[in-house]
Amino acid sequence: MFEAKVTIGLKKGITDPEGATTLKSLHLLGFDTVKEVRSQKTFLIKMDENDEKKARKKVEEMCQKLLTNPVIHSYTVDMKRV
Amino acid sequence: MFEAKVTIGLKKGITDPEGATTLKSLHLLGFDTVKEVRSQKTFLIKMDENDEKKARKKVEEMCQKLLTNPVIHSYTVDMKRV
Repeated sequence: MFEAKVTIGLKKGITDPEGATTLKSLHLLGFDTVKEVRSQKTFLIKMDENDEKKARKKVEEMCQKLLTNPVIHSYTVDMKRV
Repeated sequence: MFEAKVTIGLKKGITDPEGATTLKSLHLLGFDTVKEVRSQKTFLIKMDENDEKKARKKVEEMCQKLLTNPVIHSYTVDMKRV
């Protein structure tokens, strides 16, 4: 059994409206030392697999087919045996 | 300057519709070894602060005031000097 942690962020240069809105709201609340906010999405995926290499390859495939939009997203995959 | 990484997930027992839908879609795509999908949200917050303890306290306050809903969310904060 493996747990894959897929962290999905926006590529450099792609506007992050959620991060921008959060930054504005934090300033309005008085947190004026905050300089930047970026948002990310994470999926924790538990898989019934024995081979880490094979499992990772499947996760990469999931990212390309469903989890990310390659035009705007970059992502990282961390595998952990559980 | 510190970067806080705030990872927000759902508390145990709270339904994760995004995770459930993703799991279903992965099964439909043929990834039948996937057993569970959980979704999380991350904010990367850059702050112009010198004292880590103070900075962390502010981030905790941000979480309580804006970033999380204490009824359904649990969160972790990691501080990194940048």
